Amino acid sequence: MQIIGEKINGTRKRVAQAIAERDTDFIQNLAFEQAEAGSTWLDVNAGTRPDREPDDLVWLVKSVQAVVDTPLCLDSANPRALEVAIRTVKQTPMVNSISGEPDRLAGILPLVAEHGCPVIALAMDEKKIPESSAKRLDVVCKVMAATRAAGVPDAHVYIDPLAMTIATNTGSALITLDTLRAVHQAFPDVHLTMGLSNISFGLPGRSYINRGFVTLAMQAGLDSAILDPLDREMQAAILVAELLLGRDRHCLNYVRAARQGILG
Amino acid sequence: MQIIGEKINGTRKRVAQAIAERDTDFIQNLAFEQAEAGSTWLDVNAGTRPDREPDDLVWLVKSVQAVVDTPLCLDSANPRALEVAIRTVKQTPMVNSISGEPDRLAGILPLVAEHGCPVIALAMDEKKIPESSAKRLDVVCKVMAATRAAGVPDAHVYIDPLAMTIATNTGSALITLDTLRAVHQAFPDVHLTMGLSNISFGLPGRSYINRGFVTLAMQAGLDSAILDPLDREMQAAILVAELLLGRDRHCLNYVRAARQGILG
Repeated sequence: MQIIGEKINGTRKRVAQAIAERDTDFIQNLAFEQAEAGSTWLDVNAGTRPDREPDDLVWLVKSVQAVVDTPLCLDSANPRALEVAIRTVKQTPMVNSISGEPDRLAGILPLVAEHGCPVIALAMDEKKIPESSAKRLDVVCKVMAATRAAGVPDAHVYIDPLAMTIATNTGSALITLDTLRAVHQAFPDVHLTMGLSNISFGLPGRSYINRGFVTLAMQAGLDSAILDPLDREMQAAILVAELLLGRDRHCLNYVRAARQGILG
Repeated sequence: MQIIGEKINGTRKRVAQAIAERDTDFIQNLAFEQAEAGSTWLDVNAGTRPDREPDDLVWLVKSVQAVVDTPLCLDSANPRALEVAIRTVKQTPMVNSISGEPDRLAGILPLVAEHGCPVIALAMDEKKIPESSAKRLDVVCKVMAATRAAGVPDAHVYIDPLAMTIATNTGSALITLDTLRAVHQAFPDVHLTMGLSNISFGLPGRSYINRGFVTLAMQAGLDSAILDPLDREMQAAILVAELLLGRDRHCLNYVRAARQGILG
């Protein structure tokens, strides 16, 4: 399971403040603790100041790279910010994200192809999220046609089937799980990733819901997730799912984590 | 999800002592707290004194019935003990259990058929647990032929696919999950139940494993489980699985449980 650490995100108020104030310590601490907790990638999102995003993203990249070697996931819809950031990173970064939206494909896909970046692709179109798994698969097929045409190998694509909150539609998780299965069957070489926490938006005990959801999603093929790697209960749920799904040889990862006290 | 409360079990030392000493208060307290926690059935097992089992089981049944109305699940392989206990209960009890073992079928199935009892049937044969899901399904087919021949409706049968610990075989959970799916497909009207905790035998953090397992098993069709209904984390995992699998209309059960503080 590849973990994309989500905490360096400029849409969060405290991170936005750190970016505005160039508070290197704060950002580096977030980077360090997420790397220590086993992140495969660190998401970096410079937030919501479009005119300053290129500078902010480059500053974030430099700050993070000064303290950890974990590869980065550049989280921006702005091709100009992505381009300067890609030129700043040491290791090939992941790009977060493209979608079926034509502008986004046109702006970001050439960069991804040129630099050999893995890329997250959302199962949505022109900012609309299809309501059925069949329609989400249709969008994914369109995106995959574009990535293949651009020469991006399937194994570099991380499809996010999207999760809407279950608070307003109790079929929401099933739609996402069906989309995972459908994409996995149609494109066996692509990765499947997700921002998990949307599923529980507006409900109490969100952590319980998010953990149950990751378990079901991993069974449906999820092999990556965007989450808080410091959430030990979530880490435990992922370790347990890998164990139960036969992906932890001799139970070694699980038993080691237990010895390290991760299971609380 | 039907919960079969597991705590009144004479193979547990403290319960065996209460049975031997006719400690009514201890047993009634176990009954009361499990009923309060939402058990659909209360398992009663008189333990390991074969000569005294009929008397012990009848005493247990009477003690429990004096304080709660929850239907009972009579847990015995002894036809004589089952027969006297069935005559003592007020509401039709479930019987735990038959299997593909011919002696057990011959001794218990006629009682089940005569009294219209729901019955748990283990996916095993002559005390051997088949190693593959295909072979477990074979045993289940044999048992179902016998229950149908005896006139027991499919909806009265609770198949237990059996879970062996994952500590000695990391494919163990997958075998159980595959068996659940296969039985559900072959016999859509039967219920699927399980003693969950075997899966984690010998491993640390057992509760984490049991909770992940119930989540995956519910997706595979499990609609009943034998467990400790006082385990709030397990209850939360079940509520979450029902929510995510689209079985909790308007999220009402989940939100109510959260208000009652069940989510910790």
